[in-house]
Formats: sequence, C-alpha cells, structure tokens
Amino acid sequence: MVFWKRLFNPDSPNSSEIPQFDGELVEVTAPSENPSRIFFSTEREIDLYELEELCDAVGWARRPLRKVKRALSYSFLVVSMWEVRGNKRRLIGFARATSDHAFNATIWDVVIHPKFQSQGLGKSMIKYMIRQLRNEDISNITLFADPHVIDFYRRLGFVLDPEGIKGMFWYPD
Amino acid sequence: MVFWKRLFNPDSPNSSEIPQFDGELVEVTAPSENPSRIFFSTEREIDLYELEELCDAVGWARRPLRKVKRALSYSFLVVSMWEVRGNKRRLIGFARATSDHAFNATIWDVVIHPKFQSQGLGKSMIKYMIRQLRNEDISNITLFADPHVIDFYRRLGFVLDPEGIKGMFWYPD
Repeated sequence: MVFWKRLFNPDSPNSSEIPQFDGELVEVTAPSENPSRIFFSTEREIDLYELEELCDAVGWARRPLRKVKRALSYSFLVVSMWEVRGNKRRLIGFARATSDHAFNATIWDVVIHPKFQSQGLGKSMIKYMIRQLRNEDISNITLFADPHVIDFYRRLGFVLDPEGIKGMFWYPD
Repeated sequence: MVFWKRLFNPDSPNSSEIPQFDGELVEVTAPSENPSRIFFSTEREIDLYELEELCDAVGWARRPLRKVKRALSYSFLVVSMWEVRGNKRRLIGFARATSDHAFNATIWDVVIHPKFQSQGLGKSMIKYMIRQLRNEDISNITLFADPHVIDFYRRLGFVLDPEGIKGMFWYPD
C-alpha cells in the first residue's frame, strides 16, 4: 500500500524533530464492521492543506500555514485520524499536545470532521492520546475545554477546576 | 565577575537545546535603591539543587531531579530571578513555559521565595515572561491558577474562563 509507505517514510525531513512518536497505526474499527477502516497515526508529516480543509469543515478561523507547520513540529504529540477506503485515505480527525516531556502535557486543536462526529471516534482519539502520553510517563494531562465539550471530557476522566485551580488566558490588546 | 561569565558560558551543554532564549539579564531594582540587586535571566542552566531548595521554601512536594532537568530542557522559556550582593548570587524566583513555538504557551511552576514575596517581584517576573513570549509572537498565553493567586494573575491581565472555556485535568488513577 503506497499510502502507508509514504506516510511512514523515515527520511521525511521533519519527522525526527521530536523523536518520541514515530509513525504508528492503530486500527479503530474492524474491517468486517464497515467497508471503510479508521486508523490513528502519530506521524507529524501531515498535508497542511488537508488539515486546513478539516478545520474549515468545523468552522475554525484560518491560521497561517507557516505557523501551523511550526506548531506541529514543536508539539510533543500529534495524532491524526484517517478513514481508509481501498487505497484512498482521508484526514477525519486531529489533535496535538504540547509538553515539557516530563510532567505536563496540554491538549490543543481537537477536531473531528462533522460527518464522523457522534460515533465515539473523538472519544477513541482522546483515549489514544492519553495512552500515548502515559507511555511517555506524563502524569498531568491538561486542556482548555469550550463549554459544549466539557461533559465530553468529563466522561473521559478529565476533572473541571480540581481544588479550585482555574484556567486563565492572556491575550494581546 | 565570575558569576556572569559562568552563567552565560555559550559552551554549556544544554543551553542550545531550545535556542530562542539565550541568557539575558534584566535588572529590576536600581543599585541606588538597595544594596542588593535583582536580575532576571532566561538561561536554563540552573543548579537543580538550588532550584529544589527554592521549591522547598514554598513547601512544594519534591520531584525527581532527573525529570526536573528534562522539563527545563524541553520548556520553551525558563525564567529565573536572582538576588545579587557583591559577587554572591541567590536564586529567589523561577517560572517556566511550555509552548508549540507558534500559537500557545502555558506557564508552569511559578515560585517566589517567601522572603521576597509581596514586593512586586512576582508581578515583574510574569510581566517579563509575557514580554519574552510576545517577542516570540506567541499570542495565547495560558496558565492554571491556584485559588489564592487568581486575583494576582487577573491584575496582570489574565482572564478567568474566557467565554466559558474551562481548565480540565486528567490524572492517572
């Protein structure tokens, strides 16, 4: 399968910047259940236009691709979710985490294509991220949740404002 | 002054891991005001035992130095605050930030020695961090604030739960 070979080419220029997560595939749905198959990958060489298209689909404001590329390079963990039909693949989910590689990780930019929402795939993707971070001995996994996804994360074991600790943001004027 | 030479030795083994912030000194108090002078530095080569002593002074739980060293290496920004008297220097404050080097930064481990609290030094240190992060074009600066420091950060321009966005934590069982 050409696609996987290309996706996991070890000579790709940026894949070694943070070496903890080389490409990895985890199949979510069994082939017998559905003609399409869903895979996770931790490969960070993602087509930026395909990622932009995914973010457009959920209505996010566009960001400079130069900065998106930099953010992907310097994230500790990048997880993408792919639908595969035959030899075609489509990016249907994405999330990433920054980290100090020791104690803390913070999850950012969680997105699932609208067509694939409400099927448990977001839940599977975040669980997959937690496993990856735990494998790296990160024990404090944090995020900033929009109001409509607080219950989603709560069901995954995330605690809101534990011991009164509050998320705070500083923005430029 | 031997101290500064040692602090800013460009040959130090770890200082180049994240090259954005070489050593830098900013004097906080004018020498005429006080026999001691307070400096900030962004050099990440900090004596881990001295840092542990500072954290002990505010009652933090001890952490493995091996992991602390790793966290410092992989933080985007490390800021330390020093009291200098003659040719002696003492670590009196510390904070660090993780980042994707593009959009987001998260401030962690803010500590000021009890003897130096309530003098505006913590405020100066966080303002200094914000300037450093803004210089790197980071526009979304976040943190998780304990209840007793929420007002401190609010006075510095941090907003609590903007648009209902909530800080959430996942811990291992």
